[in-house]
Amino acid sequence: MNRIACIISYDGTNFSGYQVQPNKRTVQLEIEQALKRVHKGQEVSVTASGRTDAGVHAKGQVIHFDSPFRIPAAQWPKALNACLPDDIRVLSARYAEKDFHARYHTTGKEYRYRVLNAEDPDVFRRHHSAHVSYALDIDKMRQAAAYLIGTHDFSAFCAANTSVIDKVRTLYAVDINVHEDELHFILRGNGFLYNMVRIIVGTLLEVGYGKRTAQSVDTALRTCKRDDAGKTAPPQGLYLWSVQYND
Amino acid sequence: MNRIACIISYDGTNFSGYQVQPNKRTVQLEIEQALKRVHKGQEVSVTASGRTDAGVHAKGQVIHFDSPFRIPAAQWPKALNACLPDDIRVLSARYAEKDFHARYHTTGKEYRYRVLNAEDPDVFRRHHSAHVSYALDIDKMRQAAAYLIGTHDFSAFCAANTSVIDKVRTLYAVDINVHEDELHFILRGNGFLYNMVRIIVGTLLEVGYGKRTAQSVDTALRTCKRDDAGKTAPPQGLYLWSVQYND
Repeated sequence: MNRIACIISYDGTNFSGYQVQPNKRTVQLEIEQALKRVHKGQEVSVTASGRTDAGVHAKGQVIHFDSPFRIPAAQWPKALNACLPDDIRVLSARYAEKDFHARYHTTGKEYRYRVLNAEDPDVFRRHHSAHVSYALDIDKMRQAAAYLIGTHDFSAFCAANTSVIDKVRTLYAVDINVHEDELHFILRGNGFLYNMVRIIVGTLLEVGYGKRTAQSVDTALRTCKRDDAGKTAPPQGLYLWSVQYND
Repeated sequence: MNRIACIISYDGTNFSGYQVQPNKRTVQLEIEQALKRVHKGQEVSVTASGRTDAGVHAKGQVIHFDSPFRIPAAQWPKALNACLPDDIRVLSARYAEKDFHARYHTTGKEYRYRVLNAEDPDVFRRHHSAHVSYALDIDKMRQAAAYLIGTHDFSAFCAANTSVIDKVRTLYAVDINVHEDELHFILRGNGFLYNMVRIIVGTLLEVGYGKRTAQSVDTALRTCKRDDAGKTAPPQGLYLWSVQYND
């Protein structure tokens, strides 16, 4: 068997998230069905770097699977894209080491979050950004973001219903870039807890429109209480941008 | 009765076009249903500057309707948007002269057409641009576009199944702008025939990848034969951008 690693992109709008669920349209199911077609009816299971929730997008999700076929690596995207719906694309593929694991071997991830900051919503961006009509104080938001950089217990920035015990993670960057009427949040870290990016963005937006101080972010990091952080920002602004591995 | 003119925007992806058709989801039907709710069950009919086809978008479509209500003009978008689905937005409203007519009084229109010119398609732009993977010679396309400027019989650039007799129109501009991996076609004219923008763009793209010469556009304008122009570009790249009136 050969282990193949692929970088894939998907528009999360019409999916009930990445992971297979009964009677739901999921990214994993579509990929497994495409692989089954390519393998003439044989089941092939897929492992991703991590799940994404309903409505969340991926520019550079990484998956792996095993196949008896050894076609040129560049043929894998063509073969799979021919069987996939148009909201999932395989961007590239490579033959990986036999023990490569898309989830266990990640060394870091980058997420981006896109906010349309304008008085009115935009019909063309409604599924691909969050809309915030308030004026935002970007400097204050950047001050607040600075507290998050480094190694912290991110318990306050994690959905309450999680089973993960160790909530210490390291963030390398929390950048906020302004592009015309949009804010782009760029977060890079060695790992992310459930809903962590969306809670961080939701909290920074609350700093931006004056509902909380920049320093309240530091407080939340110290108390580790979910209630001390802000609301979870909506899914449609979030993109899993890239996944890093050591090789 | 008061005549109200509105500028509206819609994402054409999930509509069977602008105009009401039996058992189809159309922009006109959604707006008339919203107006009916605002008018407590009373039917209100809507007139637009023109139709758009299935999948075609509008940034600045203009509509008019009549109402017994005389609320401040700025309240109309709020009242209607509260009743509209999120792929249609009323951007602004004003009280017009009683004889204002959104279709008959247009003096010009601007359409834009967005092409993603990249090897691979992009899941996030698949409904909002056409994808062209070939390399395009922009200079040749601009040469070809220059022939179209001015007053011509555009019969070759009109869908065959049209009932319009006078096919002479004036184009003021056919600009092609490059934005990163996209081409934006901007067409301004005093009026447009059925499918005219999509046939012009389809023809210019054929010039761009060398299927035809720039001069072939001049030939098509002279012969007036549909077969002498190129294929109709797909709907999802097209935007009705703005509509002009004399007042």
